Formats: sequence, structure tokens, C-alpha cells
Amino acid sequence: MNSGEIKALTFDVFGTTVDWRSTIIREGRELGKQNALNVDWSQFADEWRAGYQPAMQRVRSGDLPWLNLDALHRLILDDLLTRFEIKGLTKEEKDHLNRVWHRLDPWPDAKEGLERLRQQFIVAPLSNGNTSLLVNMARHSDLNWDCVLSAELARHYKPDPEVYLTAAKLLGLSTKLVMMVAAHTGDLLAAQSLGFKTAFVHRNEEYGPSQTTDLEPDPSVDIVAKDFNDLAERLSHSE
Amino acid sequence: MNSGEIKALTFDVFGTTVDWRSTIIREGRELGKQNALNVDWSQFADEWRAGYQPAMQRVRSGDLPWLNLDALHRLILDDLLTRFEIKGLTKEEKDHLNRVWHRLDPWPDAKEGLERLRQQFIVAPLSNGNTSLLVNMARHSDLNWDCVLSAELARHYKPDPEVYLTAAKLLGLSTKLVMMVAAHTGDLLAAQSLGFKTAFVHRNEEYGPSQTTDLEPDPSVDIVAKDFNDLAERLSHSE
Repeated sequence: MNSGEIKALTFDVFGTTVDWRSTIIREGRELGKQNALNVDWSQFADEWRAGYQPAMQRVRSGDLPWLNLDALHRLILDDLLTRFEIKGLTKEEKDHLNRVWHRLDPWPDAKEGLERLRQQFIVAPLSNGNTSLLVNMARHSDLNWDCVLSAELARHYKPDPEVYLTAAKLLGLSTKLVMMVAAHTGDLLAAQSLGFKTAFVHRNEEYGPSQTTDLEPDPSVDIVAKDFNDLAERLSHSE
Repeated sequence: MNSGEIKALTFDVFGTTVDWRSTIIREGRELGKQNALNVDWSQFADEWRAGYQPAMQRVRSGDLPWLNLDALHRLILDDLLTRFEIKGLTKEEKDHLNRVWHRLDPWPDAKEGLERLRQQFIVAPLSNGNTSLLVNMARHSDLNWDCVLSAELARHYKPDPEVYLTAAKLLGLSTKLVMMVAAHTGDLLAAQSLGFKTAFVHRNEEYGPSQTTDLEPDPSVDIVAKDFNDLAERLSHSE
């Protein structure tokens, strides 16, 4: 693959650009201390994330109308608060907790890697997160995107093809000029089937130390990188 | 008005953030020299811009299907090339000329002013320009937006209310928490009628030295500023 053929890089966010699990655990523990809650926050974070695919599936199936990710996170959260027997939180505390997804910290290489990549390519998130979530997250960590591409703009969730096709259309680019960057094979194969180039980034502790999924890339991806700096390195040498 | 009540600023682009007229004249003259064309490029720039409102009106009325601004600019350009008897341009030269709108230079205060404003507020263009035009323009001049909000996302052109309402919704904000910044009263009054705060910025030479429109703000606007730096100054002192 010749990187001169690529004009834009679109990035998965949750797990690829930011470390959702550590941030949720950290904020949960702080909330737990303040409110004397006895909760396993690792399990809480994992179950919140586990509710994500089923919630999007309810939108896809028509069981729910279109709801953005903030709203889906809240549906899952309200259920978790009951199941983990977390009581006594004010409305403001629940709203704030739901917006932890706007405050997720990036992986250590993400900011620098994105800055390097942005010298050469248009860079944008292409995430199931809603626009405001992605804007707030970027401001939280001083990530500089050229634009914010959200599943919300297509009113479909990845891996529905509409999300990727809407992104390429808004960028004014043929899909073959865009590279999807993700730590998840499902995302990459969906983009690839529409003509995108693909880069797999290893995030082997996204789901904690005992992660079992997405440890190795599918052999069909164009580039495999250790992190965003490594991706910048590889793309600058593949011309 | 208390600026602490504002979370985001949305900016008109053509004429407010960038100086379309000077850039088109300059690029036109260069093209004219290369191709020995005898064209009044000031008149050419003004007529290209004059075709903008009627072209959007054709979309609003249903005479044309939804077309993004690149496509409308091209319709107007093709007509202008005939009327100005500009012959002999290759397809590549015409494509490049049409994309001059992606390369418009900012007003001298725009970059610094935006950087100052971005410290305090979410900043985004809210323009009839399509997303890719706005992305390329920002990269051309190193403008850093938090996200790119285009009329294209609503498939309506300003001043249709759908454009402003879509922008506020994507930002996750009530319209009263958003301030529209423009050099054009029509844009500001449309936003204001939906609850936006408004800032008028003087761009008294947008249409050249003999400009007769938009020289003074409507008395109903919240803030009047000389330029983006002055706007940053005024908003930092209105808390």
C-alpha cells in the first residue's frame, strides 16, 4: 500500500483512541469514596460497556427509535445503578456520571500520534459517540481533529455501512482514499468491504489484563501498528 | 448579556471568517496571466458570489435537488465562464478554480481571535459551505475548530431554521447557550429568532471598498465587535 493514495484517516474512538475502562474505574472509585458505595468498579465499567452492543441493536431493530449514544449510555446506566444497588445519587451526580464518556482519557500515544498524522492527512474520529461527546472529549484532552464525524450524522451505528459511507461523502473523498484506524477487527472489516484502507492498532489491554478479543489483526488489513506513533512512522515510510 | 451563559460560538465563514473576494481576485489574476485571459477578476468574483443566493433558492424551491455548495459553485462557474468568454481551460483547471472556495484566506485577525475564543468556548463554523470545503479551508490556514458544522448536515441552507437547530442539537446545547457570530444581519436575525445569542462583526470591505450592505449592526444583537480579537476581548469582560 502506498500512503500517497490516502487523504484522510478516520479513527475509532472508544478503545482505539481513548481508554474508557481506566477512566470509568477511576471516576467510579472517586464517586464511591464520596458516597460510601461498595462497588467493584472494574466490573461496573465492563458491564456498562457490555450493554453497548445490545443497546445499539435495539436501535437497529427498531425496538428503540434513533437515540444518540449519550441516551443509550443512560439507559444502560439506569439499569446498572439498580443492579449494583447504587442508591442515593442525586440527578446531577447521575448526569455527571453518564457524561464520564465525554471525559475519557486518551491512550498515552494518542495525542502526539494524531498530531504527527495530521501533518500528512486529514484526521477525524469516526465513532458511535455523538458529536457533543466527541467534541467534549477532544477538548478534555486537547486532541485536535480536522472535523468530528459521528455515527449520529448518519443516524446509524457502526458497523452499519451508512456510517462509513456518510463519512467519506462528507469528506468529499472516494472510500479508497480513506483509511479506517481501529483496534477492532469488526470495524475494520466493515469499512474495508466499502473500499476503505485499514489500519489495526494493538490495544491489548482495552478490556483489562485478561483481554481475549482483538489481540491479533485480521490478515487482510493494510497496516498493523503498535500505537498511533507507530502508525505515523509506518505511514511516513510507505510512500 | 453574561458570557458565562454561552458555551459555544458558531461562525459564519464566507465574509465573516475568510475574505472570499480578495482570494478569488488574486487566484483569478494568476490564472489569467497563465492563460492570457482578459478578465475583470473583481467583477468575476462579485458575480460568482452574486450567484450564490439564487442558486440556494433553486434548492429551497425544489427546482434543484439537494446539492452541496461545491456543486452550486460549479453551476454558477460554468455559466460565468461562458459569460466572461473564458475559453481553453482544461477540466483540471476548472476543477481547481471551483475549489478556490476551499483556499480562501482568513481575515488577518481570524486565526488569533479564534484561538483566544477557543480557550473559553467551543468554536465551530456554521456555514453553507460543505464539510469538505470547510475542512480544507481550515487546513489551508491552520484554523482550529472544535468541530465542523455545515448546512450540509441539515440538507438545508442558511437562513433556514433547520441549519441552526441541527447545529445546536449536535452540540448538545440549548440554542440560548450558543452565540452566532456573523458579519451579516440576515444570518444573525435568523439565529436570534431561534434563541441564539448574536455577535455582529464588522467586515466593511467584504464586498470591496464601495460596500453598501451590512455596514451597521441591527440594534437587537447582543455584541458588536470590530473583529475576532475584539470579540474575544469583549466576551472575556462580560462575565
